[in-house]
Amino acid sequence: MSRWQPNARERLESAALELFIEQGFAATTVPQITAHAGLTTRTFFRHFVDKREVLFAADDEFPALVSQIVSQAPSSLSPVAVFEAGIDALAAEMFEGRLEFLRARHMVVRSDEGLAERELSKRAAMADAITRAYLDRGVDQVTAALTAQFTMAVVGVSVGRWIGENGATPLPHIMRETLQLLRAIAAD
Amino acid sequence: MSRWQPNARERLESAALELFIEQGFAATTVPQITAHAGLTTRTFFRHFVDKREVLFAADDEFPALVSQIVSQAPSSLSPVAVFEAGIDALAAEMFEGRLEFLRARHMVVRSDEGLAERELSKRAAMADAITRAYLDRGVDQVTAALTAQFTMAVVGVSVGRWIGENGATPLPHIMRETLQLLRAIAAD
Repeated sequence: MSRWQPNARERLESAALELFIEQGFAATTVPQITAHAGLTTRTFFRHFVDKREVLFAADDEFPALVSQIVSQAPSSLSPVAVFEAGIDALAAEMFEGRLEFLRARHMVVRSDEGLAERELSKRAAMADAITRAYLDRGVDQVTAALTAQFTMAVVGVSVGRWIGENGATPLPHIMRETLQLLRAIAAD
Repeated sequence: MSRWQPNARERLESAALELFIEQGFAATTVPQITAHAGLTTRTFFRHFVDKREVLFAADDEFPALVSQIVSQAPSSLSPVAVFEAGIDALAAEMFEGRLEFLRARHMVVRSDEGLAERELSKRAAMADAITRAYLDRGVDQVTAALTAQFTMAVVGVSVGRWIGENGATPLPHIMRETLQLLRAIAAD
């Protein structure tokens, strides 16, 4: 086996999710994952701190992405318009091309209370990252926090629908539709 | 010591929070709490499953309250108008008269990662309860879920401000102001 493995990370993710679904998250060990992926334990730990992080590691890119989207938006845009302008980038960087992974993760996370709590923590950290990005833009604390909750609601509901529909409708389309719906709800 | 203790629950809450703040959540035992409150361990477990539940037990009343508010609202009201009409009842039943408890809980929860995760789980359960209440009203799934996130954002930000200001402004007033602000953010 060569020292460098192409797509090692993706192979480890796929192997882990298959085993989590087949035999349960708790019953799956790191050596089982690496054997299933045809890689070494050493390679696993070069990519992930533990087996739980296979599910959540990609989320760690979110704060930098949000900071980039929010800081690069024209200063004339309102907070929600900044989000609207960033929908394509957000969908492309965080979700598109990862539907199978996200579907499988959704199933695994629902099956384990500890994982569900971990997902809630990750979402809270995402909301904090959005709040900070808007604060850096000069938006006041309350508006930044409310905008973060508002946009997380749109993203969460949209991604849920996208996964539920197995990607039938493009995610950016669903996000724009959901944003308009939440705007209508707020105005009603 | 008589078998029935007036205000046993409140005395246990106060004693527990004092000890959690003084010596930390992890270092505080149930016997210490009951000794501090002048009550028995038996009384403690009549009111709470464990010491963590001292912090969160009151939240369990939320689903029934929300169901009552949403089901009793005139059918002509939009989802957000239902929330608006329920602000006084929500503030009175869940928050008013509990400022000291909520302030102390906020401090304790922030100090312990496990408690912070528990609080996020409780909030997710509250959002689910709101979603169910709107579904029972005949609102579609996506609108119900978005309304739940929208109203949780208003409540969360408002209660945070109310605690931060030490109750200087009445909570229903803050909630109405925050609701108008979020409506303005959504429309912008």
